[in-house]
Order: sequence, then structure tokens, then C-alpha cells
Amino acid sequence: MPYKAPVRDYQFLFNDVFKIEQYSNLKGFEEASPDLVAAILEEGARFTEEVVAPLNGPGDKEGCVLNADHTVTAPKGYKEAYQQMVEAGWPALGGDPKYGGQGLPHVVSTAYSEMLTGASSAFAMYPGLTDGAVAALTAGGTDELRDLYLPKLISGEWSGTMNLTEPHCGTDLGLLRSKAVPDADGTYKISGQKIWISAGEHDFTSNICHLVLARIEGGPAGVKGISLFLVPKFIPDADGHPGERNSLQCAGLEHKMGIHGNSTCVMVYEDAKGWLLGNAHEGLKIMFYMMNNARLGVGLQGLAIGHASHVAAVEFAKDRLQGRALTGPKSPDKPADSILVHPDVRRMLLESRALLEGGRAFLTWVSLQADLAKGSEDEATREKASDYMGLLTPVIKAFLTEKGLKVTQDSMQVHGGSGFTEHFPASQYMRDIRITLIYEGTNGVQALDLVGRKLSSKGGRSVMTFFGEIDAYVAEHEGGKAPAFVKGLKETKAKLMDGTMWLMQNGMGNPDAAAAGSLDYLHIFGLTSLAYMWAMMAESAQAAIDAGSTDPYYATKLKVGRVFLDRILPEADAHLQRMKAGAEDLFALEDEEF
Amino acid sequence: MPYKAPVRDYQFLFNDVFKIEQYSNLKGFEEASPDLVAAILEEGARFTEEVVAPLNGPGDKEGCVLNADHTVTAPKGYKEAYQQMVEAGWPALGGDPKYGGQGLPHVVSTAYSEMLTGASSAFAMYPGLTDGAVAALTAGGTDELRDLYLPKLISGEWSGTMNLTEPHCGTDLGLLRSKAVPDADGTYKISGQKIWISAGEHDFTSNICHLVLARIEGGPAGVKGISLFLVPKFIPDADGHPGERNSLQCAGLEHKMGIHGNSTCVMVYEDAKGWLLGNAHEGLKIMFYMMNNARLGVGLQGLAIGHASHVAAVEFAKDRLQGRALTGPKSPDKPADSILVHPDVRRMLLESRALLEGGRAFLTWVSLQADLAKGSEDEATREKASDYMGLLTPVIKAFLTEKGLKVTQDSMQVHGGSGFTEHFPASQYMRDIRITLIYEGTNGVQALDLVGRKLSSKGGRSVMTFFGEIDAYVAEHEGGKAPAFVKGLKETKAKLMDGTMWLMQNGMGNPDAAAAGSLDYLHIFGLTSLAYMWAMMAESAQAAIDAGSTDPYYATKLKVGRVFLDRILPEADAHLQRMKAGAEDLFALEDEEF
Repeated sequence: MPYKAPVRDYQFLFNDVFKIEQYSNLKGFEEASPDLVAAILEEGARFTEEVVAPLNGPGDKEGCVLNADHTVTAPKGYKEAYQQMVEAGWPALGGDPKYGGQGLPHVVSTAYSEMLTGASSAFAMYPGLTDGAVAALTAGGTDELRDLYLPKLISGEWSGTMNLTEPHCGTDLGLLRSKAVPDADGTYKISGQKIWISAGEHDFTSNICHLVLARIEGGPAGVKGISLFLVPKFIPDADGHPGERNSLQCAGLEHKMGIHGNSTCVMVYEDAKGWLLGNAHEGLKIMFYMMNNARLGVGLQGLAIGHASHVAAVEFAKDRLQGRALTGPKSPDKPADSILVHPDVRRMLLESRALLEGGRAFLTWVSLQADLAKGSEDEATREKASDYMGLLTPVIKAFLTEKGLKVTQDSMQVHGGSGFTEHFPASQYMRDIRITLIYEGTNGVQALDLVGRKLSSKGGRSVMTFFGEIDAYVAEHEGGKAPAFVKGLKETKAKLMDGTMWLMQNGMGNPDAAAAGSLDYLHIFGLTSLAYMWAMMAESAQAAIDAGSTDPYYATKLKVGRVFLDRILPEADAHLQRMKAGAEDLFALEDEEF
Repeated sequence: MPYKAPVRDYQFLFNDVFKIEQYSNLKGFEEASPDLVAAILEEGARFTEEVVAPLNGPGDKEGCVLNADHTVTAPKGYKEAYQQMVEAGWPALGGDPKYGGQGLPHVVSTAYSEMLTGASSAFAMYPGLTDGAVAALTAGGTDELRDLYLPKLISGEWSGTMNLTEPHCGTDLGLLRSKAVPDADGTYKISGQKIWISAGEHDFTSNICHLVLARIEGGPAGVKGISLFLVPKFIPDADGHPGERNSLQCAGLEHKMGIHGNSTCVMVYEDAKGWLLGNAHEGLKIMFYMMNNARLGVGLQGLAIGHASHVAAVEFAKDRLQGRALTGPKSPDKPADSILVHPDVRRMLLESRALLEGGRAFLTWVSLQADLAKGSEDEATREKASDYMGLLTPVIKAFLTEKGLKVTQDSMQVHGGSGFTEHFPASQYMRDIRITLIYEGTNGVQALDLVGRKLSSKGGRSVMTFFGEIDAYVAEHEGGKAPAFVKGLKETKAKLMDGTMWLMQNGMGNPDAAAAGSLDYLHIFGLTSLAYMWAMMAESAQAAIDAGSTDPYYATKLKVGRVFLDRILPEADAHLQRMKAGAEDLFALEDEEF
């Protein structure tokens, strides 16, 4: 079941749907000629399919090993593949050219990231975590720190981690106990224990830069007293060579259901030397740069693992001969038909694909907003794009991971009994994806963020602009090339509006009612967003057909889109009905009745 | 996170809802006095909670080992617990007294089975598979075979297995290649390779009786030429002592995502001595006795593992302090509130419970039908009960496992990051339950069985009787003690009727259309069945309250039921809409477009 990267989908999204060439005046896009982007997609596919994907299964079985000297050995082949990746310049794709990055659009590096993650999510997390560290240093580092660290992090020569969680303190960061004591030289001595630190220790890079949340001694209690520190494994000298070993170490590896190839570490800091990022006590602000980046990355992970599992399911279904079509044998010369003849198998495969292709468009569109927010010359465009990023980050994170899980479930189901054995990759994909609904804020936390914070932020400006954009699209395209898709979008958007009004009327005075329906509301939001993407994709596919293209890709796209309309959109009603139940039934029970 | 058996639920179902005392004229029930049943529930809970449950986690980590001599060693403690179980007489609970069984009602032994499976599903499969062998021997064994084998199997002294699947042949049994050659003494020589044989080899019992599907040499091709054989590991002498070792062995163990404590074997037969059960070439008929038994057992497994995971999630939620209630601190004296204050956590826990309590009632009600089908003196009652068993077996199997999976997913989600680690049991429950959607016929196969076979069997008599019973219940109870529940049932039943009519109008001429919506239809069927159960439970709970009971159990039951009405029943609409999409969209794609 080899991994196949979704190259053709990205070509379609870049060239037909979002026409990224039109942004050639934006920073980064001027370099991204269609030829270069095509080459990146092709080469990215080759690298991830041929070099990374073969490590995924063995890495799951082998896992990481903590050695007696507290070093960690990753699965066989990981280190070599990592080095090959760094030498080829992949990690630097979207990095700031000022620090050695290639400065290509975020939308392009996102496509590569999906391929890398689909090929092996456990492997992709090593460079993935580094991206978060780059974001934090960019947002909160002094010029000196940035000059020293960013080139090494962007190239992948060094890696990064995020240290937030402590045993008693996950979502509720106000409880954290790690402490920082100011030192005479302006640095801090960091002490504490952190858990679930992905890529916390390994032997790929000559340094590992830990981003650590801690409370400066005497700082305020709760989240208002938390600061963010850069705590490198080796303290660099002035030339940027890793020098003295800092007093931190990996004290244990977590035994997990999946992502075995990534080292999930217990990290212990004992008076480790750390540098403050941003202002004292304002660490959460900087952390959120890193966190938002990570949340988008987790949504991408949901999509990528879902895609990989779907590829395996399609291949299995085509090969597996079992039973006959209900309408008579399709392959009478063979002992049985392939299971692709069975309606329920087709249903699972096509629902998966409708979700994946819609999700990929959504992720690409949001990545484009990141480019616009950063690079547009027009302030209003930058502002709108930035609003969208804020609004849609929790939707990307939660919706793409929930649907990614559904895809991996259906992919396993297509395999029948084989899917439950570890000889086929279905089990690994399901075990690997499960964490994406949890980490970087559980999906329940994402839903609370959407409903409790994002909807009302800036007086509701973000959400009203987004809704307005959809309404305008509907008005403009109702008589267009893909009326069924515009109708599906219009109807789902109306349900989203209904849910939004309900929240405004019922959630203001009763936060429990809003929270009780928040995940259902997020689902309606996600369905509407995908309906918008599918309307745009259908329009573009139909336009290509109308223009005389004979590429069968376009006709297939419309067929898959119909499955989205028929079988995915109907879920919105149930979510709306559920959210309107409010919180009363959930709070009717006393604690002791649970 | 110790396992807690649902004793109180079964007391409620037995005494308040289904009032099993009224059946004291039925075979088996005359022995089942309320006191005895209460003692069985209490003692079953004690045994499963204290003896079996502690083996579950360690058994998952340790797994089974295939030794060089082809014997299999199960996890530590399994053998001793099995022996303790046999000595206490648990496997014989529902067995035929003619062969040493205790002859208690099926409804009572089902309650015990849920507890055993919830405590450890991998362990429970060892005696569980034996039940299937007993069913097959009872249906197809000669008197001699029955006299020789049944006492040992019913007591648990020997165990049984089911050997259906071959590498190229799962659902499509017509493809099987295992062969049987008649021997001079009336037995057969069985040769072939079988895979995924649960409990295929272990060291708990002095004999293992394999039920093996094979084709008698020269028999017709396809399923019409399949026969069922009893192939014991040791050939018993006339006194029933295991004698000569038969030429069969375990050639390998499957590496699986879950149920690690159960030995899933590759079994190889080389001219092994086997006894034909039933008629030659009619093995499938006998196999279905065993299979229907197994399908109900798998539905039970979905419920039981779901319950166990829910128990762990409730305990975690009560202990975990994180964040504050949205309406202000609930435990101001503690560093944070328990996560039970969060609406989304309560939602997950209560949806789980609404499904589990409804599912448990459904399983109990169907088990009661098994007792009626077997023991009623009234032919019409026996016939109706038998019809119900046939109709509802695929619903029990598929619906309870689909919902069980949802429960384990939500239970893991309640755990946050801890749920993904193997320090908590959430991961094991999710890995263990996943096979239940697949084996003994995937849920897609169950849905086909329901729609393609069960609905129309006997001219639709079964389904029309079932619908008529619900309509009569609604008519009688609309003005009764639980009107909201009767209304929910009435509305959901109307959707089921709508779906049934659609199938009649569209499925007859177009089997693909019927099959495409079959799993959605099965979901509506399951929701209606659970709505019926909830209506009866609510009626009974309200009756107890009206009669002055101060037991808080009854009020809690009504509160959980409201969550069922508010949050579970709304799913029916989406399923109905999806099934009405037919098959056209699924067949619009050619194979090469997948």
C-alpha cells in the first residue's frame, strides 16, 4: 500500500480554483512561478513517497528508545531521512529569506507539509515542531536571538519543541508550576517538569531548542504570570556553535497508542539557562503565535493521515476479490468481483474522498489567507485575511481532525478483518490520527474558542465578513456553472446562520448553553466552509470542461462533489437540532449521579 | 480505573421494565427466582470486577506467545482465572441441564456475559467462542456427539472455536478451499488453512473443539458445497477423555490492533480427523446457528467495552481538576474545578450513557425473545420471538458496535492527552472494540442482511409485527407516564417507516440503491429500537417514582433519557436523507476514477 501524494489536487487548487498566479505581486509569490510550484509538488511527492513513506510502518513497530544516558534513538532510517530532507532544503521552503529561508508562499509549503505528514506523521512532527519554535522566536525574540537561532532552525540544522503541559496542568495553564529565576546576566534559571513533549529528544540535530512556559519567581498567579523562555539543549557560543550542555534532559518516553516514531518526552529542567521571549508575564501572547501555527498543523495532520489511509483503502478495495455485484458478476472470468462493486464500500470510499478534497481546499484557502495577511499591500486585505485566520483556525483544527478520524475509520472498515491486523497500514493510521483530536487543545476547546472568543472578537467583524463573502458568492453564482453546489452552500449557510442567531439569543446570558452546543456549531461551520470550497471547485471544474478540457480529472471532481452534497451536507440538520437542546439536560444531573 | 459492572441497570431491567418474574412458567425461569437472579448479578459483578478486570490491562500489554512446539501461552493469570471461572460454574449458567448446564434463562446469562466482556473482552472471548460451538453441536450433532462433547463444552472443561475464514475468503465463503475427504469409519480427513481463529490455541482446557467449514471432495462449487465439521484437538476416547493428538496446529499468531489477550491463530489442518455436523453440503445452515449466536455476542461486546470505557471516563472526569465552570468556580477551595463542570465533557459522558443504557435494554429485550422462542408454550409467541431474533440480530450486532465505538471515542476524548497514553485504559478499549464492527460479518454485511434478507423474509412478517408492536405501544402510552418519550418513539418510528417505504419503492428494482442506504437504514432501525426501550424504561422509572420510591436511580434514569431524546434521536433525519440519495452518485464513477 504505497503512499501517493495528492499532487493533482494541489495543481487543481493552485491553478484552477485559487489561481495563485494572480498574487504574483505578493511577497513570496513573485518567486513562485507556475513551473517552480509544479516542480516543488512533483519533487515533494517523490521525496515523501520514496524516502519518507517507507519509514512509516517500520517506525511504528520499532518506536523510540530512551538510552541510559538520556539520549533518545528514533526508529531506523529516521536520522538519515531527516538529513536528506535538510540537505534538499525542504524545511526552509517557507522560511524568511532574511534568515536563509526560501520565502515561498505559505500555500506552497503547506502542500509540501501535507505530503510529508501523509507519508509519515510521526516523522513529520520533528520538523513540524520546529516551525512552532520559529513562529515564537519571530514573534518574541530579540534581534540577537533571532539572528543566532532562526537560520539554524529554518534550515532544519537545529530543531525546536513546545513545552507547555505539566502532569497536573494541560488545558488550564494557569496551574503551571515550572519556575524561572532571574540570573545576573539577564537570562533565567528554569526548573520544572514538562510532559508530552513531542520531538523532545532525538539525535537528528546538533541542537534542540525548547520553548518553555514557566512562571518568573514572584510573578502573578494564574495565566497572567506565565512567561515563555527559549531553553536550548546546548548553549550556543557567539558564532552559533552548540557549546555547553544545558541542565535539562529527557527523563522518560510516553507509551502511546500511536505516533510511535515520534519521541514524546518527559522533560526535566533543573536550573537550565533560558532566555525570555517577549515581555515577562506575557508568555501566553507569544505562545499563541506558536499555538495557532500548531493548530493549523494539526488540522493538516488530520487531513494528511486521512488521505494516506484512503489511498491504502482504495488500493485494497481494487485488489480484494470477494462476492459478486448485486446486479450480476462484473468480472465473470475471476473467482469473485473486486469489493469495489459493493455499494457500501463505494460509499465509504467516496464519502472519504468528498471530505478529503473539500478539506484540502479549505486548508489551502486558509493558507492563502496567511499569505495575504502577511504580504498584501492593501491594509484592508491584510486585516480581513488575518481575521479569517483567527476565526477559522479552530475550525481547521477540529473539523479536519474529526473528519480525518471518520476517514481512517472507514478506510479500516473497507479492509475488513485485514484492517485490524498490523500487516496493513489501516490500524496505524487510525492510531496515529487519534491524537489530533486531542493535542494543541482538544476539539472541545477549539469549539469553545470559536464560540466563546472568535465569534465575538472585534465586535463580530470576522464572522460577519466571512458570512458576507459567502452570501455574495451565492448571489453571484446561483445562476452559474454549478447551481446544485451553490444551492447546497446556500442551504447549509442558512443553517449556520440559524445556529449563530441561536447562540446570540441564548448563549449571551447562559454561557453553558453556548458551550454545550459549541462542537455541534463548529461542525456546521466546517460543513459550510467545505460547501463553499466545493462550490468553488465545482465551478472551476465545470469551467475547465466548458473550455474543452478532456482531462477526466474535472468530470471526476464533479462526481465526488455530488457525494459531498448527497451524503455529507445532510449532517448539518442533526447538529443544529442538537445544539438547540441547550445545556439544561446536561446540568440536570448532580455530580454524584454520574 | 477499576471496572464496575452495571448491576443496578440489570436489576431495573429485570424487575421494573421487563418484569421477568412474569415468565415463571417458562423453562428456566422457574428456577430463576428474584433472589437467585439478584445473587447471580451480585456474584457475577464480584467475580468479573475482582478476578477478571485486573487481568485486562496487563493482558493487553503482554499478549499471547506462540511457542516453538506450536502451543500458545496466554497472558499471565488468564489460565488461573479461567479455571476459577469453570469451578464456580459460570460458563454453564445458561447451558442445557441435560448436559450439565444450569438451564437459567438466556436473559440472565446475557447479563453475566456483559459483565465478563466488560471486565476483559479478550478474556471473555475464550468462553464466548465455546458458546458458538455448543450452538452448532446442538443444532447439528448426532446424539452420540452431543453426549460426548456437550457436557465438557458447557462446563468449560473444553473450549470451542469457529473456523471459517481463509486468506482469500472472508465474507465470500463460496471461495473456500479447505477440503474434507470421507474416511472408511464415517469420519472425514480435513485439510486446509484457516486464519483469524479466535481462541484457536491456548493452555486453559484439556481439549479444544474446532468447528471447521470445508468442502467435501467432489461437492458442488460455491456455498452450496460447504459442510461443517467438528475437529477436536485431541480425539476423545469413548469415555470422553482426550486421547490421540489430531493433526492440526496453530501455525502463527496474528498481530492485531487490539484484543491482544486473545490468541488469534492461523490454524493448519492436515488430514485431521473430523466429524460431519448436519448434512453434507449443508454446513452453512448449521454455521448460521453458531454465527447468529456470535453476532449477538459481538453486539454485546460493543456494549460491554463501551460501558467499561465510560466507567473509566467518569472516574477520570471526577478526579481531573482543570479550569473553572463558565458560570463561576464550583470548587473555590481547590486549585481548579473537576472537568465535570464543562458542558462538552458532560455532553460526551451523558450521550454515552444514553446509548449504553438504551443498548443494554435492547440487548436484554432481544435476549428475552431468545428465551420466549425456546421456552414459550404458546406457538404464536415462540414464532414471533423467533422472528424478532432473526430480524434484530443484524441490528444488535451493527448498531451496538457502531455506538460502542462512539462511546469509546468520547471516553478517550474526556481523558484529554492522558487518553492517548497507555497508562490509562481508554486506548485499549478503543483498540479492543474496533474489531467488533468487522468480525462475524462487517457492519456493512449486517446492513445488507437486514435490508436484503430480513425485511422481506416470510413476506415481511417479522418487520410488520415489530412495527405493529411499536404502533400499539405508542397508541396505548401516548397519554401515559412518559409522553415525551412516546412522542420521540412515534416520530422516529415514522422516519423508519418512511425509510422502509422508500426501500420498497426503490430497492426492489434496484438492489444497489437499497444496499447503498442499508447502513443508514440500519441506524434508523437501531435508533427506533432504542427509542422503544427508552419509552419503556421511562414509563417504568416514572411508575416507580409515582409509587413513592425514593431511590434516586429512577429520577436519574429519566434525566439520562432526556439526553437520548435531545441529542441522539436527531441523527435519524440525516440517515434518512442520506439513504434516499440512492446509489446513483456512488456508481457514477468508473473503477479507474477511484
